[in-house]
Amino acid sequence: MKKLYGVIGLGRFGGSVCLELAREGFEVLALDRDEDRVNEFKDIAAHAVIGDSMDEQTLIDLGFKNIDHVIVAIGDNVHASILTTLILEELGIKRITVKAQNDYHEKILNKIGADHVVHPERDMGKRIAHSIVSSNILDYIELSDEYSVVEVKVGNKMDQKTIQELDVRARFGCNIVAIKRGKDVNVSPMADEVLRHGDILIVIGSDKDISRFEKKLVIEE
Amino acid sequence: MKKLYGVIGLGRFGGSVCLELAREGFEVLALDRDEDRVNEFKDIAAHAVIGDSMDEQTLIDLGFKNIDHVIVAIGDNVHASILTTLILEELGIKRITVKAQNDYHEKILNKIGADHVVHPERDMGKRIAHSIVSSNILDYIELSDEYSVVEVKVGNKMDQKTIQELDVRARFGCNIVAIKRGKDVNVSPMADEVLRHGDILIVIGSDKDISRFEKKLVIEE
Ligand SMILES: Nc1ncnc2c1ncn2[C@@H]1O[C@H](COP(=O)(O)OP(=O)(O)OP(=O)(O)O)[C@@H](O)[C@H]1O
Ligand SMILES: Nc1ncnc2c1ncn2[C@@H]1O[C@H](COP(=O)(O)OP(=O)(O)OP(=O)(O)O)[C@@H](O)[C@H]1O
Ligand SMILES: [Ca+2]
Ligand SMILES: [Ca+2]
Ligand SMILES: [Ca+2]
Ligand SMILES: [Ca+2]
Repeated sequence: MKKLYGVIGLGRFGGSVCLELAREGFEVLALDRDEDRVNEFKDIAAHAVIGDSMDEQTLIDLGFKNIDHVIVAIGDNVHASILTTLILEELGIKRITVKAQNDYHEKILNKIGADHVVHPERDMGKRIAHSIVSSNILDYIELSDEYSVVEVKVGNKMDQKTIQELDVRARFGCNIVAIKRGKDVNVSPMADEVLRHGDILIVIGSDKDISRFEKKLVIEE
Repeated sequence: MKKLYGVIGLGRFGGSVCLELAREGFEVLALDRDEDRVNEFKDIAAHAVIGDSMDEQTLIDLGFKNIDHVIVAIGDNVHASILTTLILEELGIKRITVKAQNDYHEKILNKIGADHVVHPERDMGKRIAHSIVSSNILDYIELSDEYSVVEVKVGNKMDQKTIQELDVRARFGCNIVAIKRGKDVNVSPMADEVLRHGDILIVIGSDKDISRFEKKLVIEE
């Protein structure tokens, strides 16, 4: 049977979670105490309801007991977020993901039964700081403290060179695992592939090696 | 010379950008009209100042003209965000990154000179929805509409198997580009590498191929 999801709080974060789950074909029960927010999701979520999640009876009446995974995306009102998590835990919800405001909030959430606590603004702040510092790093995954996958743009220094000529692996110790050109993505690039200005390379390696590669071949001026 | 950064608005997002830029060793001029927020960044940013960014003279007096890249991280007050961006543009700031509240806000920001508009909550909502749907996908980069890099956890189905035995490339068309085991990351995995429960694989490929791979080898129950 398909999983049922619940989203409480339809702000920018919760709204985006709701939209994406619905897009993936899942049935979502969405709740917010703000009528305008709920109306915006009437045609997106399977059920979009106006209500206060701090009221246990509301959650019971709406059938939250049958939901497999609930995402609590209430931000500014830390009290509402904590109380809602507590009620969901007592209703026996198996998986509860909660958006936290800060570390202190996170600690409480973990203690009362949240299974997963997220910090969307903080995580994205970190991500965007990275892409700002090196404006040629478009996105990245931090694999560990020392290793990352990064997306970098081909500029003048790599334009018209083959992967073999650049010899990134031998010179810097990191690997080009894919090349993105417009809408096309080549996940098995050959050594004789000629890079072009504007191509995007997906590179994996230690941060130190990636940084040496960037200084030499990515950063322009 | 090292670049100078400015961060206006020290909420969860702006605060995280400021912290990360400072950690990377850059000089940051941080501004917020809220005293508590500013105090929190006194020891983090090179300069943390209380002030209203809608006041042009404040920005001039603080030397914003010399800043290379300003991040406007004001959220709820769309008017303040727009007016601040306008003033920065008129001061001749070369790069302005602005956090937007919604698409309508973004359109205005682009028109008045923002160089880059970001939607942290929305982007993170999408990301977290993905990791929720497939609880074995830990993180991902969307390379294009059709291609991604994903982090997946090795469960029972892949435990004690070699990469060669699993033959992911031939069977599903996607590539295992790295293996993470505890703190160690192997970015050049060999065919005879034995996978273990809890290992994290970095896989690149088309979404369709990755999804077939996941259904067969990643998703448990
Ligand atoms: N007790 C509650 N019951 C139902 N909905 C609630 C409750 N408290 C807050 N909400 C809703 O949660 C949503 C998100 O809350 P809020 O805007 O405070 O968080 P936020 O972190 O600033 O959001 P974001 O950054 O994701 O836009 C709002 O739409 C709000 O109406
Ligand atoms: N005109 C202004 N001048 C300086 N700082 C401002 C101004 N307007 C708002 N701020 C500050 O910007 C910060 C972020 O604003 P706000 O909390 O409304 O956004 P937000 O999107 O909810 O933030 P986040 O989700 O990142 O926590 C706040 O600390 C606020 O004090
Ligand atoms: Ca807010
Ligand atoms: Ca639980
Ligand atoms: Ca500009
Ligand atoms: Ca927010």
